[in-house]
Amino acid sequence: MPLSGIRILDLTRIISGPYCTALLADLGAEVLKVESPASGDPVREQGVIREGISWYFANYNRNKKSIAIDLYSDAGKALLARLVPACDVIIENYRPGVMEKMGFGPERLKALRPDIIHCSISGFGDTGPYRERPAFDFVAQAMSGFMSLNGAEEDPPLRAGPPISDLVAGLYGALGVMAALLRRGQTGRGDSVSVSLLNSMISMLSFHASNFLASGMVPSRSGNDHGIVAPYGLFRTRDGQVAIAPSNDGVYHKLLDAIGLSQLRESPEFITNAQRMARRQEIKAIIEARTSTQSSEYWIQRLNEFGVPCGPVLGLSEVFEDPQVQDQEMVITVDHPGHGDVRMLGFPIKFAEAPSSCRLPAPELGADTQSVLASVGVSAAEIEQLRQTGVISAPCINA
Amino acid sequence: MPLSGIRILDLTRIISGPYCTALLADLGAEVLKVESPASGDPVREQGVIREGISWYFANYNRNKKSIAIDLYSDAGKALLARLVPACDVIIENYRPGVMEKMGFGPERLKALRPDIIHCSISGFGDTGPYRERPAFDFVAQAMSGFMSLNGAEEDPPLRAGPPISDLVAGLYGALGVMAALLRRGQTGRGDSVSVSLLNSMISMLSFHASNFLASGMVPSRSGNDHGIVAPYGLFRTRDGQVAIAPSNDGVYHKLLDAIGLSQLRESPEFITNAQRMARRQEIKAIIEARTSTQSSEYWIQRLNEFGVPCGPVLGLSEVFEDPQVQDQEMVITVDHPGHGDVRMLGFPIKFAEAPSSCRLPAPELGADTQSVLASVGVSAAEIEQLRQTGVISAPCINA
Repeated sequence: MPLSGIRILDLTRIISGPYCTALLADLGAEVLKVESPASGDPVREQGVIREGISWYFANYNRNKKSIAIDLYSDAGKALLARLVPACDVIIENYRPGVMEKMGFGPERLKALRPDIIHCSISGFGDTGPYRERPAFDFVAQAMSGFMSLNGAEEDPPLRAGPPISDLVAGLYGALGVMAALLRRGQTGRGDSVSVSLLNSMISMLSFHASNFLASGMVPSRSGNDHGIVAPYGLFRTRDGQVAIAPSNDGVYHKLLDAIGLSQLRESPEFITNAQRMARRQEIKAIIEARTSTQSSEYWIQRLNEFGVPCGPVLGLSEVFEDPQVQDQEMVITVDHPGHGDVRMLGFPIKFAEAPSSCRLPAPELGADTQSVLASVGVSAAEIEQLRQTGVISAPCINA
Repeated sequence: MPLSGIRILDLTRIISGPYCTALLADLGAEVLKVESPASGDPVREQGVIREGISWYFANYNRNKKSIAIDLYSDAGKALLARLVPACDVIIENYRPGVMEKMGFGPERLKALRPDIIHCSISGFGDTGPYRERPAFDFVAQAMSGFMSLNGAEEDPPLRAGPPISDLVAGLYGALGVMAALLRRGQTGRGDSVSVSLLNSMISMLSFHASNFLASGMVPSRSGNDHGIVAPYGLFRTRDGQVAIAPSNDGVYHKLLDAIGLSQLRESPEFITNAQRMARRQEIKAIIEARTSTQSSEYWIQRLNEFGVPCGPVLGLSEVFEDPQVQDQEMVITVDHPGHGDVRMLGFPIKFAEAPSSCRLPAPELGADTQSVLASVGVSAAEIEQLRQTGVISAPCINA
């Protein structure tokens, strides 16, 4: 596995941080998830619970170990200080400044482990006027401009359904950690990596940002139409609708051929994309007059034969039944002892030589406290005392 | 830099692949962008052009070198075979099978460079019934179920404004390449990495997927409301609206305190999130009766003081003027000789020791053909002949 032998101390909770560490765990890292002994990661209680386990929690915490330590207590902080030297990477999603207040600022971390890689995932970044604000996916979507681009022109700005700022921040965090690991391999030096929900969403503005910066023109929401390409969008068929995306003149010509309107290529009012943008509704109506004569299935097959990107708009029940999605194993089933089989999302990165797999189901709270603490030299007597004083929670596995 | 000394042969075009290689270039890799001599990456002509350069192209192709080779010609393919041994990584976004048809299947690549890392970015993945279909961001958004979750319940499924399936696939591609580089560092072996637009978007379904898989209940679109949390969403103020995201009971209580409705904590019909979900419109109206008495600015300051995640919904002109965004340098200005200053998105991953920077502006088509070919042993006479036969395009820099 790419990250075999890399140990990560994971102080994150909820979604952006746990997704970051799940990506690294799926690539082979040993992830030690530190949770509060009282209740653990709040996601343990969120989403649909089946046979005593949240499938949402199970998805984002596979391949991890759980150690339950009360980091508010001095004894808990002392344990953290014993764990850091044994870890290559520490990842947290506290607000900036909290690590320092806990006594684990950059200097201390470096003293404990000179080549430590520290990754911070926050709402707004380590510096700047909003650095200490609480953050949440929705707020990052709103403040990044993303919502101003999402939705129909006549409707208000719209949040994306899934929590994409959390997820993209998690992806950037994983990328930053891997970059720092590569650099450590060359130089022997650690680094401090910082990503934020807001910066992550701004990085997703793509050509909308470039066009705005170049022209000063604020882009409008365009719903399912493309901001700068026509025809494009959802087209009515006899029994539904199909998403069709002819990205350039060549593909536009293929679309015309596929729907039996090749003569339109020469039509002087629709030669260029700019002309078609100006008559977007007109060209759409012409195309729909053809697409509405046959089923979606018919058009999906025919348009693909002609090389026109297209597809159905699927709901989740259809997505997970789709033969392509099944071929790609984008849903996997993992046995969770005591909770039965849990189905969850598969691995989006496919490796020929070192494929990801689910080596460990999501852990019970504190399941690995004892073994991990023992591995860094905490004695059995100390562990027992810490348990009795409530600093740690560690199920007696051998009892 | 984390990827100093890593050379990447970049056969990608448009956006998912170029974003992947831009991420790696920003981390220090030497990226050799191979383009067709005739016109190069189509994005050179897309988006707003200023002083002869597309700012969209400039954004996604910074820190890269351009070599213009006609890969349809045998002589061009022969040049590619001379470049592969000098590169650590080859990244392409052809449809699966095209590399084989070009004569560069896995066996050949491995023969040319035994520890090569090959990354393929495609619409649907290397296997499965749709593997050869043409793909496009919109189609992946439609087929992944993402659109079924985006939009208001009463409206049709909606594409996200920015091309997020391209971008997320690019992120996974970069992550996969870095993972393979880390593994190569340990084992000396290369790997083959494959990511797809569809799988990338499916991986973004998050708790919607977990909840569906656990319950069989197909989630509905919830617009700006949260699928499983209330109150949550956009709330009217005296002069606009504010996004407020109280993710749990604790933050809900802080919100009530901030808006002077602490007594509502005890209100028996609003104790639990489930109760508030059932009376979502009612609780929203109660809150808006307060928020509508003051300005957005007032509430953003006050709610943040109370620890309630919130923020304004910003358009792009406001985003790039925002003091936090400026502090985080999420817009940078890069001098492009002959085209003036180009403003573009900054770097979302911040490193303390090895920060990203723009070392090279986006290259002119073929600007580096000559120097790169010379570096792999192609003689000046050969280069001149290849230029005259149109196999390469290489501006005479010293002419």
